Amino acid sequence: MKVVIVGGGAGGISTASNIRKLDENIEITVITRDNKVAYSPCAIPYVLSGDIESFDDIVMRTPEDYKKKNIEIIIESEVTAVDSKNKTVTYEKDGNETVLNYDKLVLSTGGNPFIPPMEGVDLDGVFRIRNIDDGIKVNEAIKNAKSAIVTGAGLIGIEIAFALKKRGLNVILSEMLPQIVPRSLDKDMSDILVKYLEMEGIDVVLGKPITKLIGEGKVEKACFGDDDYYDADLVIMATGVRPELKLAEMAGCEIGRWAILVTDRMETSVKDIYAVGDCVESKDLILGSNTISQLGTTAVRQSKTLARTICDKKSRFNPVLNSMVSKVGKLEFGAVGYTTSFAQQNRIRPVVQKVEALTRARYYPNAKPMDIKVICDGNGKIIGCQIIAEERVAERIDTMTLAITEGLTCFDLSNMEFAYAPPVSMVTDPLILAVEEVSKKFN
Amino acid sequence: MKVVIVGGGAGGISTASNIRKLDENIEITVITRDNKVAYSPCAIPYVLSGDIESFDDIVMRTPEDYKKKNIEIIIESEVTAVDSKNKTVTYEKDGNETVLNYDKLVLSTGGNPFIPPMEGVDLDGVFRIRNIDDGIKVNEAIKNAKSAIVTGAGLIGIEIAFALKKRGLNVILSEMLPQIVPRSLDKDMSDILVKYLEMEGIDVVLGKPITKLIGEGKVEKACFGDDDYYDADLVIMATGVRPELKLAEMAGCEIGRWAILVTDRMETSVKDIYAVGDCVESKDLILGSNTISQLGTTAVRQSKTLARTICDKKSRFNPVLNSMVSKVGKLEFGAVGYTTSFAQQNRIRPVVQKVEALTRARYYPNAKPMDIKVICDGNGKIIGCQIIAEERVAERIDTMTLAITEGLTCFDLSNMEFAYAPPVSMVTDPLILAVEEVSKKFN
Repeated sequence: MKVVIVGGGAGGISTASNIRKLDENIEITVITRDNKVAYSPCAIPYVLSGDIESFDDIVMRTPEDYKKKNIEIIIESEVTAVDSKNKTVTYEKDGNETVLNYDKLVLSTGGNPFIPPMEGVDLDGVFRIRNIDDGIKVNEAIKNAKSAIVTGAGLIGIEIAFALKKRGLNVILSEMLPQIVPRSLDKDMSDILVKYLEMEGIDVVLGKPITKLIGEGKVEKACFGDDDYYDADLVIMATGVRPELKLAEMAGCEIGRWAILVTDRMETSVKDIYAVGDCVESKDLILGSNTISQLGTTAVRQSKTLARTICDKKSRFNPVLNSMVSKVGKLEFGAVGYTTSFAQQNRIRPVVQKVEALTRARYYPNAKPMDIKVICDGNGKIIGCQIIAEERVAERIDTMTLAITEGLTCFDLSNMEFAYAPPVSMVTDPLILAVEEVSKKFN
Repeated sequence: MKVVIVGGGAGGISTASNIRKLDENIEITVITRDNKVAYSPCAIPYVLSGDIESFDDIVMRTPEDYKKKNIEIIIESEVTAVDSKNKTVTYEKDGNETVLNYDKLVLSTGGNPFIPPMEGVDLDGVFRIRNIDDGIKVNEAIKNAKSAIVTGAGLIGIEIAFALKKRGLNVILSEMLPQIVPRSLDKDMSDILVKYLEMEGIDVVLGKPITKLIGEGKVEKACFGDDDYYDADLVIMATGVRPELKLAEMAGCEIGRWAILVTDRMETSVKDIYAVGDCVESKDLILGSNTISQLGTTAVRQSKTLARTICDKKSRFNPVLNSMVSKVGKLEFGAVGYTTSFAQQNRIRPVVQKVEALTRARYYPNAKPMDIKVICDGNGKIIGCQIIAEERVAERIDTMTLAITEGLTCFDLSNMEFAYAPPVSMVTDPLILAVEEVSKKFN
């Protein structure tokens, strides 16, 4: 059997590795535009910040490493056509076209940065961050820059703004919505983060879109709203990623509201064509509707299911909660499930409680504040959680992910056993405090 | 209504506070032997180590604070009799006897350190650590001591051995069983901890009980086995705690294999007498049999149920998994559920996997090794987990506690979503690596 994989990101390359773990004989070919594979794009901001020494560190494996596993990687190549009748793909490399047959085709085409249509986005000094080469270019540009504007205050935007500040630039983080991390955090929680970023010297501009970028060949200023001008030697567009669907459309795969539709075995609507990663839709665990989960972990998990599907083994990709975590400077923040406003938009009447707790026993040195918000539906079922603290956030998000996945109510979780020792937790865990408090609202 | 509570530890004092939160009028009296209430005994080793500055820091509230909440605390008093027919308790304070009527009686009598019968245990310099006064005495003794032996390598024993080492003493940690933390860790996991303790300069002596203590008035040497003598200016008996049952027996409460039998509403077999904390038996979540859960968190959680029971509100104390965590020096270790050998003793054929992972992305600075062991039953149902690392152990234990509580298999958990960011986790969480590996044993 011959499997051709389009895309060398987390979804594509993990699918290749996972198939190989299950089967030694399947022919596997990965075609990628990139010149590198098996690196962690989530790590790019941390290289820019200097926390990770070099871009080389975040490249886990080379195409040669895959060669040894009998996986062929064709780099710097663009797949230009898919013919699902004759089961071929056509790719272009160095100006030459090659046609490959496939038995199974995997579309792991990822997404393209969404750049809002705007005057000046093509000026020098305006960057997007999607792959390691983008990172390398920004890293060079930093050396001659004094000021930067990062627009789009999702995770990547925040992480990059923080990195640029750490490198000594004057940094504005701008977001057209009235809050940062709008997909994952409620405004009051995101405000804690804003306060921290401002304390670190980053200017946060909310609710005002950039309307144009101005400069002579190279960007010099950005205009916010009608006539607010700010200097910028460097502009980073962190305005989200749109699924890349061209090949899927060409192949006749059914497309949903945002991306390729797949079964829970990662099959598209076209026989022998599969898809994973940023270019597919997932099921939302709470409402069962379709959603989009553009996370590295989602791609990796989907690739495990897909490898089993291709090797004729049982596996199912479960609905998602889009659990996330990040760390900027000292502050770790994470979230899972619905925000208050997302719940409301979906006709759930959320019952919400925010509590302030500590990361260790009150009397233990270096106990840090922990802000936790829990969101329940009208029956007390937990549907969301957001946490900000200097430590121990990620794993609590995981505990809440499991609680939501299992359909637990705040009453159920209130009774749960938690491990305790003064240096690592409170005698009543912050999560328990939060669910106990929200439970009271149901009395 | 008049509630009398015997015992001012975590169970007793929390019951008092929780009743008061639910009802302003109930008369509440707590009688305790101690001269302090509302302190954290789990914190004593960390005061001895110097991590917490003074014993005053770990006392959260005084009897006067409780007075303000209309809770009467009678300190330094011994309850000498319970009459469950006439509903009275008799206590002795300063040589005077007083008889109190009760409507509801709470026995939170805790436990007494178990001191094995042995020559020399009454010598000066031999201590047990149960309350804050014990801590203060040891703290004084440390100042004139050069060498110490801590016997009993459960959590408290290890924490105290570490504290004494940090204070500059030569320390031997001795355990008559062939491993440390035998209740919670498998031998191979406990060996990681032994290696760390030895690296920190503690001598660990396993499988050899202390047979006698020798000295002229004051302890000078301990004899291990037949004729192995070690110097010791200080000996700490950390050989466990036996439930204090005298009053329960006097009142006619039914006693189980180890402790007072209670319902899931914390009722004893005698009407209007309730019990919580180290002196009661709990249900084991996995087998449903009785067990004993002498943890501060268990006492606190039981007290919440008991307060609701007394105030005629619904609540149920759930079966336990005895999830635990501790931290000595840099190393955090935790466990939940059954060890391999405990499973075997209970006729479960355990399927076990140990993995080594990292606490952060491989390329991220300060990624630390994390050792995880997962224990499943013959059907893949998770029944235990043990984790050792320099960070992020406690919350992963909590995630596993929830997984076991919900009856998840290793296959279920393999599919779970985990939050990821390079500074705080691996793209595939260590827990997922562990359950994926153990899952393979079922193929």
